[in-house]
Amino acid sequence: MPRKIIIDTDPGQDDAVAILLALASPEELDVLGIVAVAGNVGVAQNAINARKVVELAGRPDIPVFAGCSRPLRRHLVTAEHVHGQTGLDGPNLPEPQIPLQTLHGVDYIINTLMAAEPKTITLCTLGPLTNIALALIKQPAIAERIAEIVMMGGAYFEVGNITPAAEFNIYVDPEAADVVMRCGAPITILPLDVTHQIQSTPERLAAIKAIGNQSGAAVHAMLTFSETFDLKKYGWTGAPLHDPTVIAHLLQPELFEGRHCNVTIETSSELTVGMTVVDYWHVTGRAKNATYLRNGNADGFYKLLTERLARLP
Amino acid sequence: MPRKIIIDTDPGQDDAVAILLALASPEELDVLGIVAVAGNVGVAQNAINARKVVELAGRPDIPVFAGCSRPLRRHLVTAEHVHGQTGLDGPNLPEPQIPLQTLHGVDYIINTLMAAEPKTITLCTLGPLTNIALALIKQPAIAERIAEIVMMGGAYFEVGNITPAAEFNIYVDPEAADVVMRCGAPITILPLDVTHQIQSTPERLAAIKAIGNQSGAAVHAMLTFSETFDLKKYGWTGAPLHDPTVIAHLLQPELFEGRHCNVTIETSSELTVGMTVVDYWHVTGRAKNATYLRNGNADGFYKLLTERLARLP
Amino acid sequence: MPRKIIIDTDPGQDDAVAILLALASPEELDVLGIVAVAGNVGVAQNAINARKVVELAGRPDIPVFAGCSRPLRRHLVTAEHVHGQTGLDGPNLPEPQIPLQTLHGVDYIINTLMAAEPKTITLCTLGPLTNIALALIKQPAIAERIAEIVMMGGAYFEVGNITPAAEFNIYVDPEAADVVMRCGAPITILPLDVTHQIQSTPERLAAIKAIGNQSGAAVHAMLTFSETFDLKKYGWTGAPLHDPTVIAHLLQPELFEGRHCNVTIETSSELTVGMTVVDYWHVTGRAKNATYLRNGNADGFYKLLTERLARLP
Amino acid sequence: MPRKIIIDTDPGQDDAVAILLALASPEELDVLGIVAVAGNVGVAQNAINARKVVELAGRPDIPVFAGCSRPLRRHLVTAEHVHGQTGLDGPNLPEPQIPLQTLHGVDYIINTLMAAEPKTITLCTLGPLTNIALALIKQPAIAERIAEIVMMGGAYFEVGNITPAAEFNIYVDPEAADVVMRCGAPITILPLDVTHQIQSTPERLAAIKAIGNQSGAAVHAMLTFSETFDLKKYGWTGAPLHDPTVIAHLLQPELFEGRHCNVTIETSSELTVGMTVVDYWHVTGRAKNATYLRNGNADGFYKLLTERLARLP
Repeated sequence: MPRKIIIDTDPGQDDAVAILLALASPEELDVLGIVAVAGNVGVAQNAINARKVVELAGRPDIPVFAGCSRPLRRHLVTAEHVHGQTGLDGPNLPEPQIPLQTLHGVDYIINTLMAAEPKTITLCTLGPLTNIALALIKQPAIAERIAEIVMMGGAYFEVGNITPAAEFNIYVDPEAADVVMRCGAPITILPLDVTHQIQSTPERLAAIKAIGNQSGAAVHAMLTFSETFDLKKYGWTGAPLHDPTVIAHLLQPELFEGRHCNVTIETSSELTVGMTVVDYWHVTGRAKNATYLRNGNADGFYKLLTERLARLP
Repeated sequence: MPRKIIIDTDPGQDDAVAILLALASPEELDVLGIVAVAGNVGVAQNAINARKVVELAGRPDIPVFAGCSRPLRRHLVTAEHVHGQTGLDGPNLPEPQIPLQTLHGVDYIINTLMAAEPKTITLCTLGPLTNIALALIKQPAIAERIAEIVMMGGAYFEVGNITPAAEFNIYVDPEAADVVMRCGAPITILPLDVTHQIQSTPERLAAIKAIGNQSGAAVHAMLTFSETFDLKKYGWTGAPLHDPTVIAHLLQPELFEGRHCNVTIETSSELTVGMTVVDYWHVTGRAKNATYLRNGNADGFYKLLTERLARLP
Repeated sequence: MPRKIIIDTDPGQDDAVAILLALASPEELDVLGIVAVAGNVGVAQNAINARKVVELAGRPDIPVFAGCSRPLRRHLVTAEHVHGQTGLDGPNLPEPQIPLQTLHGVDYIINTLMAAEPKTITLCTLGPLTNIALALIKQPAIAERIAEIVMMGGAYFEVGNITPAAEFNIYVDPEAADVVMRCGAPITILPLDVTHQIQSTPERLAAIKAIGNQSGAAVHAMLTFSETFDLKKYGWTGAPLHDPTVIAHLLQPELFEGRHCNVTIETSSELTVGMTVVDYWHVTGRAKNATYLRNGNADGFYKLLTERLARLP
Repeated sequence: MPRKIIIDTDPGQDDAVAILLALASPEELDVLGIVAVAGNVGVAQNAINARKVVELAGRPDIPVFAGCSRPLRRHLVTAEHVHGQTGLDGPNLPEPQIPLQTLHGVDYIINTLMAAEPKTITLCTLGPLTNIALALIKQPAIAERIAEIVMMGGAYFEVGNITPAAEFNIYVDPEAADVVMRCGAPITILPLDVTHQIQSTPERLAAIKAIGNQSGAAVHAMLTFSETFDLKKYGWTGAPLHDPTVIAHLLQPELFEGRHCNVTIETSSELTVGMTVVDYWHVTGRAKNATYLRNGNADGFYKLLTERLARLP
């Protein structure tokens, strides 16, 4: 039986690829719904983008919800400089036909978890953790009903991207990340440490384009657009690919390795706010609360991604 | 036309007196609903207490909702050492007959504000600001629809009560207080600076008992219980009375005086967390966001309270 | 036998009055030396001012040293807006004739304490605590040789003056204040809570002028200048007088009352940095480390000051 | 003409090797003096260790001073778990014959810098930065007289060793590190990022032992002792070698590469205190203040070290 997941996301080219990868894997993953959150761009645009992507995948049946439009207590920081004005620049995707669900995304998460058998639903988070935190605050009982939270976010050995200490998803809403990290549910983290290894080299992009379907073409256009920023910054031959690693981890966990340890979010210092402080070497006495992945198999990842995208329209 | 208010509260003896004062003033105040929040005790008990109080006032028609059971990101700190195990020790009030509303208190606040004419509903907050903050996060559009937030909370010249720097309501959920204080809605604060002047001397308590109705007897029993802690701590002849000043301010604002200035909440330092940093002397450039009241007319207050309680059963 | 003191100071009109009060009391106080520190103005000007004042008092034998020109880790904040460009605006005092001592003020403090019998020398601090902290860091053994540190600084019930949370002397070098407060030596604090009660009303200033000597005239001119800022800010009939309370406390401790409790300095939060967090009600478990004075007898103080100034040239 | 250096140190096996490397290079480096600081063990023991090392090198003419015994404002944290009870466990070095200088190490630094031609003396720091910070606070004029500060300390890509965020030397006295980092003098940093690449493999240690002199034997014994902790922690075949990279950088800067950028020290958050926040990618607007080295040539380093140690007794 496929694993039931809710995808919480701010698409985002790499979010879009993650959604496509999930929808291309129905034997393993049952995508119950997609919830947009403010992050790369505002929540309204993100909700539009999410609907574009499910339609691209030929899955207009997937319900899309809008969650929070602002972080818990910070002003919203966005990333148009990376993702473009629409957040999903690159391909020319048609305006979505399916409607946005009217239920608030946070209530969708709460209601779904409370109605289902405990420990049967996994939350995949690809953006700031505002929606998940708000759900935990509004209805704390969901914490023990979550099967797992698998998140893209954070950085430790690979250091921050939006500041010297912080990765974007955590930085945008560090208080939300703090709430999630201390909620007690099982947590797996795909940080920059992993995603900086999953580089979209020209060969890998070419293989995706060569699939020949509309999804492959769109992914190629997306990643060609979004990689510009990182290629310039890091001087690599391929850009990191972030969010799809969350879905890849659900499909083939053996592609990644890391350590169960304590991860605590910095929220008090302006200099280091949003840092994921990982006790990778167990030098503090803090209790283990997350599996922090450090390495990923890039060849294996792109093989998986390319094969799966080929199943889509 | 009476002013429409929602009371957000963690009753609490002094919260109960505030509710009674409001319900005793139907010509001026239209209590739309009461929302419980975690604070003096847990939210479930607070919701029971709120229903006891509306029944004591002969107003079983007032809907009571349960809001948040935990602060935004802190562990809940409660105050049974002041208020007793039930949070409302003192009188023997019967178990409530009216049901708790099923709608979450945060959604009640959002729905009511979004459905009403803008700027027609005032939020009276008598406890931690978790519910109001969560409503602002979930639906930021309410900020400009709130007529006013009148809150009991904070301390400046009178310093903290739960820590040397912080007053209890703000300390319990400083991040929530921060969200509220920066939301843009008009804010009026009744802090310890005021409430420490509104002392329940034996004469004032005797006058309340002398009313002769069940409400007066209950208020007398409540305040006789709850004053024990403060009388011992401060060595005064009367204890401070906190939450009813919020309602008194709605009824007779001339009883209080203060200043429009900047109030910012400390959230980052463990030593001073929860402090209401009041720029009373305008020495910073921070924008004014609240009316901070500093003095109250105790005789005028108790006259008002005693007269109004006499109108109740 | 008179009590041996070292005065650490940033004169400053009120510092000057404190020095004069000490030098006018040779039966009780043996002023071993005066050490200047950066504060109201830079250390070089403060060292000039200190020499002007000892000459005004007819005591060119008092050695004057220059200590630190900058706080431990902050940029120096000065207060020319209160004290004037020279730091001692008001009277026309002649340029000093006595030389500045060549020994660094911090080494003077260390050497004097290490050479004397333990617990025989009291440090009177009228400015930021940089010199004392640096001495404690450079030679920690002085801590147990200090008889007492009597300081003007801090604010609690009277709140801050330079920021809403911080008094100037502590704010200028909060890390130094933190080092001093945790050094283990006996500490007595004369904060704004006291000094705001010691108001220089027109009658009190007139009495000082009426003494008829040069010191009285100079003090009158100093306080007439420096009070301008506070009179305008607070709207009182007399301005607070700060530093002389330290000397008055040595002479007549019965003029003041307060409580032995914990005082901790805020150093981490930008919002509240420099706050003296006083556990006046013993609500924390923190160990008592200082006597925090809260009330002062203004009539008694000005009587003492006027009588003593009359003894000077 | 050899470059004039003062070595500020808490020896420490790797500090000892650094001192030996410097003393073995008289054509390039003129070691004016060595100043001990509290760090790996207390300052008194560190001053003994420094004298043992100069005698081992046959250089009893090098003056050794004791500096600060405590950090600016923190309790001293030491590292006997790494370095052993003497701080220099491993070889059996005789008790030193030369006396400790009586001048305080901080005054030695100040006096030497003030007496010399500006920009002619380099400070090599191998431990916490307390002495340098205290000198800068006591006599700020030294800042523009320092030729360069070359320090071992900090971590960024290699993350912390004493906590998840902080390297030991910075963590012990973060306020001192902050003072130094903002002093304006040219700064070069040899962090864990470099030193974790300079691993003392069995082959490299064997080559040192094979030199056949007493210095080689002592270095072999030292590093065999001190590597135990790191070998166990990291599971590598060789342990990092820290402090000698500072001297190697003076001798052969081409062995290292990095970037000129902003480095700011975290001092306010308990979670991340002592972190060296490196703006390696220039994503903040903070001014460049240090050259942060990221890579080192391990083969080149050990070749240099082995050749130079052979010149010693």
